[in-house]
Amino acid sequence: MNLKFQKTQLVNALSIVMKAVSTKTASVILESILINATDNRVVLDATDNELSIQTEVDAIIVEEGGVVLNAKLFSEIVRKFEDNESLIELDVDKDFKTTVKCEQAVFNIMGIDPVEFIPMPNIKRDDSIKMSQFSLKEVIRQTEFSTAISDINRMMGGELIDVKDNVAKFVTLDGHRMSIRNINLIGEYEDHRCVVPVKSLQEIMRIIGSDTQKNVNIYFSKDHILFEFDRTLVLSRILDGEFFRIESMLSRDYDTKVTVSRLKFQSAIEQSMILIRENEHKPMILDIENGMLKISVNSSLGFMDTKVNIEKSGSDLKIAFNPKFVVDALKVIDDDFVDIYFTNAKSPCFIRDNENTYTYLILPVNFIG
Amino acid sequence: MNLKFQKTQLVNALSIVMKAVSTKTASVILESILINATDNRVVLDATDNELSIQTEVDAIIVEEGGVVLNAKLFSEIVRKFEDNESLIELDVDKDFKTTVKCEQAVFNIMGIDPVEFIPMPNIKRDDSIKMSQFSLKEVIRQTEFSTAISDINRMMGGELIDVKDNVAKFVTLDGHRMSIRNINLIGEYEDHRCVVPVKSLQEIMRIIGSDTQKNVNIYFSKDHILFEFDRTLVLSRILDGEFFRIESMLSRDYDTKVTVSRLKFQSAIEQSMILIRENEHKPMILDIENGMLKISVNSSLGFMDTKVNIEKSGSDLKIAFNPKFVVDALKVIDDDFVDIYFTNAKSPCFIRDNENTYTYLILPVNFIG
Repeated sequence: MNLKFQKTQLVNALSIVMKAVSTKTASVILESILINATDNRVVLDATDNELSIQTEVDAIIVEEGGVVLNAKLFSEIVRKFEDNESLIELDVDKDFKTTVKCEQAVFNIMGIDPVEFIPMPNIKRDDSIKMSQFSLKEVIRQTEFSTAISDINRMMGGELIDVKDNVAKFVTLDGHRMSIRNINLIGEYEDHRCVVPVKSLQEIMRIIGSDTQKNVNIYFSKDHILFEFDRTLVLSRILDGEFFRIESMLSRDYDTKVTVSRLKFQSAIEQSMILIRENEHKPMILDIENGMLKISVNSSLGFMDTKVNIEKSGSDLKIAFNPKFVVDALKVIDDDFVDIYFTNAKSPCFIRDNENTYTYLILPVNFIG
Repeated sequence: MNLKFQKTQLVNALSIVMKAVSTKTASVILESILINATDNRVVLDATDNELSIQTEVDAIIVEEGGVVLNAKLFSEIVRKFEDNESLIELDVDKDFKTTVKCEQAVFNIMGIDPVEFIPMPNIKRDDSIKMSQFSLKEVIRQTEFSTAISDINRMMGGELIDVKDNVAKFVTLDGHRMSIRNINLIGEYEDHRCVVPVKSLQEIMRIIGSDTQKNVNIYFSKDHILFEFDRTLVLSRILDGEFFRIESMLSRDYDTKVTVSRLKFQSAIEQSMILIRENEHKPMILDIENGMLKISVNSSLGFMDTKVNIEKSGSDLKIAFNPKFVVDALKVIDDDFVDIYFTNAKSPCFIRDNENTYTYLILPVNFIG
């Protein structure tokens, strides 16, 4: 095989597939990338067994072929070439001895036969849903945080994608809180439902663009979900089993409704968090009265309180939360003002908008006083 | 005590004294700062026993007094106040109960009696040397890297400051290499010589400005060195004992002189380092011939070579180095071209300029071939 690359294009493609390269593994293959040049296309491939990424890169194909190279080593060699304009030449002989050349510098490293590589499973690409790259990136960011790595319940490390009546619902929950985002799809789609490891979605969030004009096609199969965008395919395994019955956790009844400036509330909570040491589990207490929300913390470090103006309807209420859970939700909402719905000090609160774009459920914690 | 601060001024002063606050200590005092308001001045103080920093901050003094507060906690409270314009009020009662207020937020934390604090030793400030803040910051950056933490030889963790004939010489060495920088002082000064823990100088480098118009006064005493700049005093213990006899290591004889583009050489060495795993100790080999310097590495990961144009006088030479040591020196030199002087494959090389501003000595390593 003999290929010639432009540095920026190769660096770009490598940074995409590197997201599926394992760093801590005993397997040489999972630390590697496959470079394949056939049918006038050069394709890079990487997999960590759960996530597989394939991307196409422009290159001059002098001789077709393939090789598997250590991903980190090859990527460092390419990045360190000084000149962005000169072509990078990749030459692989029949024993997979590999030479990487650019200007004066010549690197000789050992490659592996492509037959050793685990190929990406073939997914039928006929029935997809479509959304903009921007929407997918945003919806992952707005939900990925309320997950937990749990051996007891693996579903807490997954994200439900539920397509129904042309709405895609994304849901995560970790036992203390739940995040729900709904995206209205443009077009008519069949219903689909699967749970994707949140780690896979986080990697997609990192490589996908923020373009509202470019689309992602999402394909569903029995064991996998496939994302197709630009010249890239990302394939993830899905989690076996049923997701939580979330409908039973949701309620539209409430006794207290508060409308508050999102940034002012967030800033007040962040102040209260200063006095909470990581392992102390001290709650933040909210005192909801007409016109005013008092936020206070009392811990081994001292005590503090602060106030934020609110609009309130319904009863006064005193309720306590883990402040981090409230801040996490406020951070990923775009609205300047948020509506928060409470029932009583033992029941979850809901931060949600009227358009049903988002619902964040947060369980309160016990407190004395 | 009752004081009122502007947020940015207080944050600024705190970030300066925080450099002398210990993070891993069983001592409450070493994790704290002293705030003292007397004689119409508000002064912040911190010490980790080796390094002490004192800085003055503007404040409205409603009532004089003093308190010792946990540095990290107080600094976080101040930083998290939302409004940069509103004044921050610090109120301390006779039992050192401390209230920090800004706008709606009120924090109550426990302070400590200032008599518990270790005061900064009093150093006679009559005989100083003077240099610009820029010069001091630069000279530390250009020498601090060739030091080592060694129980066997503590001097390797120190930096010699040797003032003689109105030249300040700064020297560090770690057993493999030595860095020397000379600064011509403006003015007439007595000779001084001491060894400062490099950690102290690194902290000074982080808090000092880059202003060529502002000066630092440096005072020497039997056990301490004191740096005075802006409204800040930094006092460091000095190391007991004699520094290495560096004169005997220096030689102006050479058999080979090479002139090379600093950035091209640096970039070629950085390429060669890709193939060197941290614990493999593989050398970089330099082949010096007329007009051309070949750089090569042969390791378990593969082999590479590259070339850089040079001007050479004297004999051809093959010599090996730890590439990191060469790159570290090249990185802190400002010249576009550097002169490197060699004797033979067993003797140190010297990177130095004609004006005697800098000398970097690097020992070669053995190699086979």
